[in-house]
Amino acid sequence: MKNFVSMKHYSKHELLQLIKLANDIEQHGIQPFNQQLFAANLFFEPSTRTKMSFVVAQRKLGLEVLDFMSDVSSVKKGESVYDTAKTFESIGASLLVVRHPQDNVVHQLANQITVPIINAGDGKGEHPTQCLLDLLTIYQEFEKFSGLKVGIIGDIKHSRVARSNAYALSTLGAKVYLSSKTEWQDHSLPYQYIDIDDAVEHCDVVMFLRIQHERHENQASNDHYLEKYGLTAEREKRMKPHAIILHPAPVNRGVEIADELVECNRSRIFKQMTNGVSARMAVIYRLLEGGGITHEKPINQRKAIISK
Amino acid sequence: MKNFVSMKHYSKHELLQLIKLANDIEQHGIQPFNQQLFAANLFFEPSTRTKMSFVVAQRKLGLEVLDFMSDVSSVKKGESVYDTAKTFESIGASLLVVRHPQDNVVHQLANQITVPIINAGDGKGEHPTQCLLDLLTIYQEFEKFSGLKVGIIGDIKHSRVARSNAYALSTLGAKVYLSSKTEWQDHSLPYQYIDIDDAVEHCDVVMFLRIQHERHENQASNDHYLEKYGLTAEREKRMKPHAIILHPAPVNRGVEIADELVECNRSRIFKQMTNGVSARMAVIYRLLEGGGITHEKPINQRKAIISK
Amino acid sequence: MKNFVSMKHYSKHELLQLIKLANDIEQHGIQPFNQQLFAANLFFEPSTRTKMSFVVAQRKLGLEVLDFMSDVSSVKKGESVYDTAKTFESIGASLLVVRHPQDNVVHQLANQITVPIINAGDGKGEHPTQCLLDLLTIYQEFEKFSGLKVGIIGDIKHSRVARSNAYALSTLGAKVYLSSKTEWQDHSLPYQYIDIDDAVEHCDVVMFLRIQHERHENQASNDHYLEKYGLTAEREKRMKPHAIILHPAPVNRGVEIADELVECNRSRIFKQMTNGVSARMAVIYRLLEGGGITHEKPINQRKAIISK
Repeated sequence: MKNFVSMKHYSKHELLQLIKLANDIEQHGIQPFNQQLFAANLFFEPSTRTKMSFVVAQRKLGLEVLDFMSDVSSVKKGESVYDTAKTFESIGASLLVVRHPQDNVVHQLANQITVPIINAGDGKGEHPTQCLLDLLTIYQEFEKFSGLKVGIIGDIKHSRVARSNAYALSTLGAKVYLSSKTEWQDHSLPYQYIDIDDAVEHCDVVMFLRIQHERHENQASNDHYLEKYGLTAEREKRMKPHAIILHPAPVNRGVEIADELVECNRSRIFKQMTNGVSARMAVIYRLLEGGGITHEKPINQRKAIISK
Repeated sequence: MKNFVSMKHYSKHELLQLIKLANDIEQHGIQPFNQQLFAANLFFEPSTRTKMSFVVAQRKLGLEVLDFMSDVSSVKKGESVYDTAKTFESIGASLLVVRHPQDNVVHQLANQITVPIINAGDGKGEHPTQCLLDLLTIYQEFEKFSGLKVGIIGDIKHSRVARSNAYALSTLGAKVYLSSKTEWQDHSLPYQYIDIDDAVEHCDVVMFLRIQHERHENQASNDHYLEKYGLTAEREKRMKPHAIILHPAPVNRGVEIADELVECNRSRIFKQMTNGVSARMAVIYRLLEGGGITHEKPINQRKAIISK
Repeated sequence: MKNFVSMKHYSKHELLQLIKLANDIEQHGIQPFNQQLFAANLFFEPSTRTKMSFVVAQRKLGLEVLDFMSDVSSVKKGESVYDTAKTFESIGASLLVVRHPQDNVVHQLANQITVPIINAGDGKGEHPTQCLLDLLTIYQEFEKFSGLKVGIIGDIKHSRVARSNAYALSTLGAKVYLSSKTEWQDHSLPYQYIDIDDAVEHCDVVMFLRIQHERHENQASNDHYLEKYGLTAEREKRMKPHAIILHPAPVNRGVEIADELVECNRSRIFKQMTNGVSARMAVIYRLLEGGGITHEKPINQRKAIISK
């Protein structure tokens, strides 16, 4: 693995290996890297959850964290994403984590920059580490993917999470259904659209998406959204006994999911967050172990000048 | 101690123990925690002094620091304080330090969240770690509280510092006086209001409060404030020989205190800042040692997955 | 060395020592300090490159980093730079790195504050660590300064980089030429102005300056700037065979330098960034070793209370 940019790039075997590594890290821990390495988090969009999850993952692996703030930075001076990334590489970063509002920027960077790049969300493209944490959560619940029915429900069109999950779940043998109001459907994705009530009743995993108000030109009205397209208490009662609820968060409580269901027995929403740390540790570990730094050899002589 | 939210919760004995622990840490140091733990600093109001003081305290205790910026975060996406706090707990924080512009938010959180919470200032409520550093400063000077006269002077009504100090100093046996212009008096506090000139002449400790311009609807005019209600050079001459000057800072120089007095012999204003680090170390230590992490046992298995 | 504020303060011998220390650190590394020390980065102007370069340098030396954000801080409450700096000193910082939009602020601070101060850019004054990394880059190329012709080209008047470099290069025995359009010339500097074409043809080092749009009252028009005053592909062909290109970055691609030349064989622009880390490590090391902390003695008992 050189970069971690799209879930499309991985086979069933590779995905399972990554999920199992994440699960193993969560259960047994892992030795931090044995030399001083720097990770740069380049978030060109605001983020709490994802960025903080990466920071915890990085610190648990013993990495130093460089926090780039696009709003107080050279971006104001008109610097390109490429030049920013190259700058961080030049000052010694061994890993770049990049979020960007445009769909293709992270893919481009991955071809231009030498050090590994993790896509932390690119426009309406993908969000592969969020996907991996979802997969980990499903795996911990069912210990398999093949034959599982997963409903992805909500704002499909604007959701990078939906895209990454649909690709990976299909690869893993799950049956993916989409559910969305008409104007939020994306027919470039080769999956069946079904009614919210069917999705809730027949799926083993119901994954609600956040309404991305910040991505909509006209602020979508929330009027009756919950009743029409969200998880009401009434719908929850019709879920299969073992079925679970996922949401990438932050939840618009009372919009995608009824307030009182956010922390109900079926909900794995906060467990997803916990899993996010292990999932990201697994990805970072895989990207950096290739450089040999887990086996006492420096990934790059230039970057290891301190430790003697 | 589960949380550190209000000075009202502590007995004289508990306060003295905390002050002495802080003093001991300042003089002799203390061993950092022996495992990797994360503290999250959730400041929903801007802060330099308090936040940086917490960071130094946390790093001296060996804690990892997660820095939440409310202005570049999910708060913009409408997330509640509870969901933000729960997120940090989910990704592995063992301690939350919370500042919030509303009076009751931190108290509520303390009842909802499992990990310890420190109130770093809540609206016009309390600011207990600022209080503790004031107590430490007074203790280092006088080695007692009983019988001391302490004048708290200025914008009482909008000051969480005044509130925390008045509670704790009374508990410790000091005699608290308040001094304020009429519109800034708070008569819910059971302490005597006296004239600024009386306060300055008779008190052993004169504690000036910052004018919280940012909390006033109409920007208060500073015209003649110093002469009428502040510490002029002339008033300083009438202080008792051993009396000291405190201020939570940042000082509006020439408003609450004459510029040239900010670093005069009686002033403990920068000593207060130094003491803030030890005071916060003491609080954090007390909150986390309960989890056993000072005695080689992990506070929470889930959070200690790395060290093997 | 007590502070690092201006390149005017150093003799040829001192500069060479510093350059060689930086070069040595880059090639062989250096032991981190053996105690917990805090560095505070006080940037009153936005910065990515310089700030991040300092952070990497500080972490490689084992320093803790306190990151001050002027836009979310007490500065909003009207606090002076002096009081901010004194606050960081009071909470335990052993080193302050200061960038400020006004020319004289850092010099003043250096006289008022006890702990060492590094000037990370002050208005149109100086930027000595940027200068040191330029010197290191030139030294690595030519292994000498005396007799070298260095052309500093562009917005001289608004450039602190130009000023620091002109002083230091002269001290080191290089011949400094300036090239600028008329309104950006600064005739207080005692160096000869020459035409851009002469500079490019005759200099061993051509150092282009960034157009500081953010410092100009009227946004300067970039129309034909490259053709008139910048490095075109045509001009690059007329450079001496061994001559190199420097730029403090971020480059306005296609304005100061043709896009395709930014990473050409002659360009040392990204190498400069890499060198920035070593240069800053050398400066920090020199400033702090004076306190004895490289020889097992604490620089200040008060600041070393933890480690036993």
